[in-house]
Amino acid sequence: MNHPDPEVLKTQERLTSYQAYFGELFASYFRALPGTLDTPSLSRFTLRCLDLVEELSLRGGKRQRVAFMYEAARLTGGSPVGQAADIAALSIELLQTHLLIHDDIIDDSARRRGGPSTYYAYRAELRQHPRHALGLAMLAGDLAAYLALDVITGSGLPADLARAMTAVQARAGLATFVGQVFDLERDFLGVPTEVLLHQVSDYKAARSSALAPLELGLLSSGADPVPHARTLARYAWAFGVSGQMRDDYLSLYGDEAVTGKPATADVRTGRCTYALRHLMRVARDRDRRYLAKVVGKADATDLDVARVREIAVACGADQSLRRDMRRYAEMASEEAATWRVHWAAEPVAFFERVPVWGVERSL
Amino acid sequence: MNHPDPEVLKTQERLTSYQAYFGELFASYFRALPGTLDTPSLSRFTLRCLDLVEELSLRGGKRQRVAFMYEAARLTGGSPVGQAADIAALSIELLQTHLLIHDDIIDDSARRRGGPSTYYAYRAELRQHPRHALGLAMLAGDLAAYLALDVITGSGLPADLARAMTAVQARAGLATFVGQVFDLERDFLGVPTEVLLHQVSDYKAARSSALAPLELGLLSSGADPVPHARTLARYAWAFGVSGQMRDDYLSLYGDEAVTGKPATADVRTGRCTYALRHLMRVARDRDRRYLAKVVGKADATDLDVARVREIAVACGADQSLRRDMRRYAEMASEEAATWRVHWAAEPVAFFERVPVWGVERSL
Repeated sequence: MNHPDPEVLKTQERLTSYQAYFGELFASYFRALPGTLDTPSLSRFTLRCLDLVEELSLRGGKRQRVAFMYEAARLTGGSPVGQAADIAALSIELLQTHLLIHDDIIDDSARRRGGPSTYYAYRAELRQHPRHALGLAMLAGDLAAYLALDVITGSGLPADLARAMTAVQARAGLATFVGQVFDLERDFLGVPTEVLLHQVSDYKAARSSALAPLELGLLSSGADPVPHARTLARYAWAFGVSGQMRDDYLSLYGDEAVTGKPATADVRTGRCTYALRHLMRVARDRDRRYLAKVVGKADATDLDVARVREIAVACGADQSLRRDMRRYAEMASEEAATWRVHWAAEPVAFFERVPVWGVERSL
Repeated sequence: MNHPDPEVLKTQERLTSYQAYFGELFASYFRALPGTLDTPSLSRFTLRCLDLVEELSLRGGKRQRVAFMYEAARLTGGSPVGQAADIAALSIELLQTHLLIHDDIIDDSARRRGGPSTYYAYRAELRQHPRHALGLAMLAGDLAAYLALDVITGSGLPADLARAMTAVQARAGLATFVGQVFDLERDFLGVPTEVLLHQVSDYKAARSSALAPLELGLLSSGADPVPHARTLARYAWAFGVSGQMRDDYLSLYGDEAVTGKPATADVRTGRCTYALRHLMRVARDRDRRYLAKVVGKADATDLDVARVREIAVACGADQSLRRDMRRYAEMASEEAATWRVHWAAEPVAFFERVPVWGVERSL
C-alpha cells in the first residue's frame, strides 16, 4: 500500500473525497426514508428490514462505482442537471446493496464488508426460524432493488432523464442477474475457457460496476451516452475483467483479514475462478493430482489451502495472473486515453489511472 | 359456479376475453425476449432461467390485474397512448411472476398455478445442489422483477408516461415487499387484531393487485390518476381485504383440487389468517383447547384439519367469514358507484360488479 507516485496518490485522494461526500449523502437518504416510504404502522419487522438494508449500505466499501459516476459527469464539461448525479449515485449503491444481499444468500456467506451479511444477521435474530430468516433476507434484497429505481422515478428530475436513468439501471440489473446465473452455472462446467470467465465477469461485474456508472454520469451532466456506447463498453469490459481477476487473486492469495473472506472459500466450493483456472493449467501432473483431491472438497483446511498456494507460487501461477490483470487494466487505460480528443483532460486522466491503481492497491 | 345472473355472466365474459387477449400478448413478449435481452452466448442456464420465468408467467391465473388495468383505461373515455395499456399489462404480470417466485421460496411451496413452483422445478433439476437451486430460483425472481420495469423503460412510450408508469410499479413493488415482510412477522404475533390483518392485505395484495392496475390503466389512457388517489386507494383496499378473506377462506374450507394448495398448509404453519382468527375467537373453550393442540403443528393431518373444519362449521365461523368478505366486497362496489358521476358507465359497472363476483366465484 506504499505508493510514492503522485498520480496514484491523486487517484486515491479523489476516491476518498467521493467516498466521504457520498457517505453523508447516503446516510441522509436513509434518515429520510422512513418518512417517504409507505410502511404499515403496525409492523416492526418492516423497520428492522430497512435498518438492515441501511446498515449494509452504509458499511461502505470503496464506492468505486460512485467515483466513476461523478467523474463521468465531468467528462463532457456539460452542466449538471439538478440533483441528477446524487440521485444516480444513490441508485447505483442501492442496486449494489441488493446484489450483495442476494449474493450472500446464494453463497451462504456469513460476512460482508466486515460485518454480518444480512442473511446471517436475520439467522442470528431468528435462530429457531431459518425459513423466516431466509425469506426476510430475500425481501430486504428485493426492497433495495426497487429502492434503486424508486429513488430515480420518485425524484423531481425531468421525465426524459428519469426514463433514461431508469432504463440504464434496469439493463444493468438484468445483466448482473444473468451474470449471477452464469456464475452458478460455472460450478457445473469443469475447468472453463478464459472466454467463458470473461463473459461471466462482463455480465456479473462490468455492467453494473463500470458501464452503468459511466452512462449515468454522462446522463446526469446532460450528455447522451448512446453515441459512445462502444468505447464505454470496451472500457467497462477490460476494467471488469481485470477487477474480477484481482478479486479472484485476493481470495486465493490475499490476506483473510483484508479480504474479509475465508481463504478456504473458493478452494472448498471448487469454483473455478481465474486464479484456480491458471493454477490448474500450469501445475505439474503430480501437483495437479493433489489439487484434484483438495479443490471442491468442503472439508479443505487452511493447511490444504497453504499447500495450494505453495504449488501456485512454485509454478508461477500467481505471477502469471498478476501479469494478466495488469494487462487488462492497461487495456482499459488505453481505451480511456482515446477519450482525450473529445473529453475533459482531468476526468479522462482519472479513468486512465484508476484501472492500474485498482489492481495494485491491495497487492 | 352456476350463475344465472346475466350481469355476473357479463363480468365473467369480459374477464375471459382479457385473459385470452393477454395470453397471446404475453406469449409473444416471451417469444421476442431472447432477441432483445442481452445474455451471454456461452450460458445455457440463463436460457433455462428465462424458460422457467416464461413457463410460470404463461401458466396463467385469472389475470384479474390485467382486466382491472384494461377496464381502468376505459374509465375516462380518453384516447389510448400508443401501446401503453399492453406495456402496462406486461409489467403488471411480470411483477406478479416475481412475487410468486419469491413467495414460493419464502413458503417453501412446491406447487403454483397447477404446476411446480420455480424453486421446486430447480430443486428437481439440481437434486444434489440445493444451494444452487435456491440461488437460481431467487435470480429468476430478480430477473422477472427487473423485466417488469425494463418493459416500460425500454418501450417507445413518451418519457413522462414511462416515468409515471415506472413510478407506479416501483411503489407497488415496494409496498408488496413490505407487505410480505409484515406477513412473515404475523407468525410471531399470536392472534392478531383485524386491523393488523387488514394492513397486511393492503400492503401485500391490494397495492399491486388493484391499486397499481387502476393507476396504470388511467395513465395509459392519458388520464392523471393523482386527483383520484383517495377513491382508488379506498376501492383497492376494500377489494384487497375481501380478496384476502376469500383466499384465506378457501385455503381452510376450499377444495384442495381447486385451490391447488394442501388444506393442511395454514393449519400446519399456524399462520393466523382471517379464517383461523375468526375461528379462534368464536370457538367454545373446549374446542379452543383442541385448536391450540393442532394449529401450528407441522404434523397436523388431514383428519385434524377435517375436525378443525367441523368445529368451525358448528360455531358458524365459516359463515361469519363469508359475511365479512361480502361486506368488504360491497364496500368496494359502493366506492366504485361514486365514479358514475364522472367516468364511463360500462367500465364503472365492471368495477362495481367484480368484487362481489370475486368472492362468490369459487364458493
